[in-house]
Amino acid sequence: MIKELTVNLGERSYPIYIGEGLLSEIGAYFEKHGIGKGSPLLIVTDTHVGPKYLKEVAGRLESAGYKVAAHTVDSGEKSKSLAVLEDVVATALEAGLDRKSTVIALGGGVVGDLAGFVAASYMRGIRFVQVPTTILAHDSSVGGKVAVNHPLAKNIIGAFHQPEMVFYDTQTLQSLPDREVRAGLSEMIKHGLIWDAEFTAWCEENAGKLVGLDSEALQHGLYMGCSVKAAVVSKDERENDLRAILNLGHTLGHALEAVAGYGELLHGEAIAIGMVAAAKLAVKLGYPEHIDTVTERIFRKFGLPVRIPAHLDTHEIMRAMMHDKKFNEGKMVYIIPTDIGKVVIDKNVSAESVKQIVNRMKQED
Amino acid sequence: MIKELTVNLGERSYPIYIGEGLLSEIGAYFEKHGIGKGSPLLIVTDTHVGPKYLKEVAGRLESAGYKVAAHTVDSGEKSKSLAVLEDVVATALEAGLDRKSTVIALGGGVVGDLAGFVAASYMRGIRFVQVPTTILAHDSSVGGKVAVNHPLAKNIIGAFHQPEMVFYDTQTLQSLPDREVRAGLSEMIKHGLIWDAEFTAWCEENAGKLVGLDSEALQHGLYMGCSVKAAVVSKDERENDLRAILNLGHTLGHALEAVAGYGELLHGEAIAIGMVAAAKLAVKLGYPEHIDTVTERIFRKFGLPVRIPAHLDTHEIMRAMMHDKKFNEGKMVYIIPTDIGKVVIDKNVSAESVKQIVNRMKQED
Ligand SMILES: NC(=O)c1ccc[n+]([C@@H]2O[C@H](COP(=O)([O-])OP(=O)(O)OC[C@H]3O[C@@H](n4cnc5c(N)ncnc54)[C@H](O)[C@@H]3O)[C@@H](O)[C@H]2O)c1
Ligand SMILES: NC(=O)c1ccc[n+]([C@@H]2O[C@H](COP(=O)([O-])OP(=O)(O)OC[C@H]3O[C@@H](n4cnc5c(N)ncnc54)[C@H](O)[C@@H]3O)[C@@H](O)[C@H]2O)c1
Ligand SMILES: [Zn+2]
Ligand SMILES: [Zn+2]
Repeated sequence: MIKELTVNLGERSYPIYIGEGLLSEIGAYFEKHGIGKGSPLLIVTDTHVGPKYLKEVAGRLESAGYKVAAHTVDSGEKSKSLAVLEDVVATALEAGLDRKSTVIALGGGVVGDLAGFVAASYMRGIRFVQVPTTILAHDSSVGGKVAVNHPLAKNIIGAFHQPEMVFYDTQTLQSLPDREVRAGLSEMIKHGLIWDAEFTAWCEENAGKLVGLDSEALQHGLYMGCSVKAAVVSKDERENDLRAILNLGHTLGHALEAVAGYGELLHGEAIAIGMVAAAKLAVKLGYPEHIDTVTERIFRKFGLPVRIPAHLDTHEIMRAMMHDKKFNEGKMVYIIPTDIGKVVIDKNVSAESVKQIVNRMKQED
Repeated sequence: MIKELTVNLGERSYPIYIGEGLLSEIGAYFEKHGIGKGSPLLIVTDTHVGPKYLKEVAGRLESAGYKVAAHTVDSGEKSKSLAVLEDVVATALEAGLDRKSTVIALGGGVVGDLAGFVAASYMRGIRFVQVPTTILAHDSSVGGKVAVNHPLAKNIIGAFHQPEMVFYDTQTLQSLPDREVRAGLSEMIKHGLIWDAEFTAWCEENAGKLVGLDSEALQHGLYMGCSVKAAVVSKDERENDLRAILNLGHTLGHALEAVAGYGELLHGEAIAIGMVAAAKLAVKLGYPEHIDTVTERIFRKFGLPVRIPAHLDTHEIMRAMMHDKKFNEGKMVYIIPTDIGKVVIDKNVSAESVKQIVNRMKQED
């Protein structure tokens, strides 16, 4: 069974298809979406994903009558760079991509962000289809944020460029390393925590199935996760206000990633710690005790970290957060849960109380 | 006296101010446009323009209470690259530019296109003000096309990003080299030829004043040139159809630039030849003889080239045009004047007749 949902963004609205074995039908979906055969397609993928799925995707599209070119980048965050963008554009030019062409991101968030920015900027914008192959990419493929990194800052050069469609074959997740699975589920849980208590409870009950990549559970979880993100983005496409709630756990999460050195903590792991911290901060601010208990319990069930690695320096963590520009005279903007499934954007959290939580989370077991 | 016109693009509408000595008031204009003082500004300029005008612009803005950073790139087309973009973004990061900051392009089309793409992509898009210092930039500063080049293709990586305002101080044009003046006027004449017979006649009558940088003539010419471009762009922001008429003379012009090697012919010179060729093609297609006579006479008056340098190879020129992708089985899309001030987009021009014109234009005196 194929699940379908729509990201409502006026004339930029687009569908997300989620299903097991969906890739075999990609040609028909492209036709259905009016993607013409007169202009070549470009698939962008990485060195982990390409060897597994490129042949099938390219083959299916070719069988449907499309001309297909491909570009494979090294797997990993380093590929989100302007230099790699220039390489991909070279392939696009050599393959003759024109304004009616479509770029396909076959991979996780790295490939999605990179290929998305290629599509956003090639000839000032051509079409773009996401074929996510990680769980985390249920997050990155909704909302149209695309970007590459600068040596001095992550995701700083980019665009808002909505895809034509997102084409999610849960089968591809079977080859994802276990640690990437758990890290990706962290963002799924986040979508529950900010928006939907019932879905949060469902995640907790189905932790085993999700981590074990049970097909039905995955499809439901991805569908719900995408739905929450789509609902938020529909109300605030360009991150003027509401969209910030998607950053639950991210202020601390980003700081931990930066201080630990990218690699030690996966993004999903870092934000799991960040979400636990936000819950503790909430309780400190007077919100109900169970926010903390439940949040921590869920992440433990998924085998995700809930403590700050003891060797990370508190001072450096705080400094990294201040670098994040959310500080203002000792006050910071923080996404605070007020209950399970509900958050507020609190612009008045004192850096001091954040620091206390950071210290506590390094000491507790 | 300050002339003002509006580029009508719905919520992306913006004003163009044209006046002599306008720079001295830039601070007040920024305030009037609601550009806040809490976030730093970044001026991007080049090695020819910076030494002349950066101090004044930065100084005026600082006096008005703005925090100002600056980045100077080498003058010339080479600066429209991803590598230079990365450098400019480094400066932006070091200066602490945030989502409320504004990028200012102080220079000609090169700086405008580069700084515009920085503004379009920095944090996925921040504000942008154009301060054009060339005549050609009356063209490039209207319409929101911004881009950098790829080693394999010009302007291929970019965006549509409309400025907040265009701030044109005709005083700055006094330092422009004579050859750049004439080349810039070529695009002004183009705006007459595609849209307005009366303005075309005015250009011809005022050739001497324009080339001599007479302030009043310049202001009127720039105002009219910008108005035509604004009218076209308002009807077709994303170049779906009408906007293509702005390419009068450009198919051949780009080919000549490429074959001659960038540098021998300035862009404005190359398209002057291209517009004369289009006029000759028009006559060949049965449109009135005077189109050719008048077009050629005007460009001669401005001291712009009206013949193809004899050493350029016809075959290479034709190949460069085919590379421009406008060919289709021996047919090409060509902007053809049907009278002075009127053009059509003809999708059915035979490559053979273009070739005949090219050959003729190499032989005539
Ligand atoms: N645009 C957004 O809104 C948004 C949101 C969240 C994250 N992101 C970005 O997403 C990126 C992280 O995404 P990610 O976690 O998917 O990273 P990723 O794309 O690097 O994938 C993680 C790893 O799994 C491998 N992989 C992917 N699919 C696989 C499969 N099916 N089988 C085997 N291996 C596979 C990859 O090669 C990589 O080694 C970051 O760059 C982050 O900035 C963007
Ligand atoms: N975005 C668009 O819609 C659009 C339209 C047309 C052209 N363009 C682009 O514009 C560029 C050409 O623009 P341009 O002709 O202004 O080139 P430019 O910016 O290179 O300026 C021409 C030369 O004049 C110098 N200069 C500029 N202002 C000066 C001044 N006031 N005094 C002395 N020297 C000065 C520059 O340093 C340079 O050497 C090309 O890259 C072209 O692709 C863009
Ligand atoms: Zn995240
Ligand atoms: Zn031009």
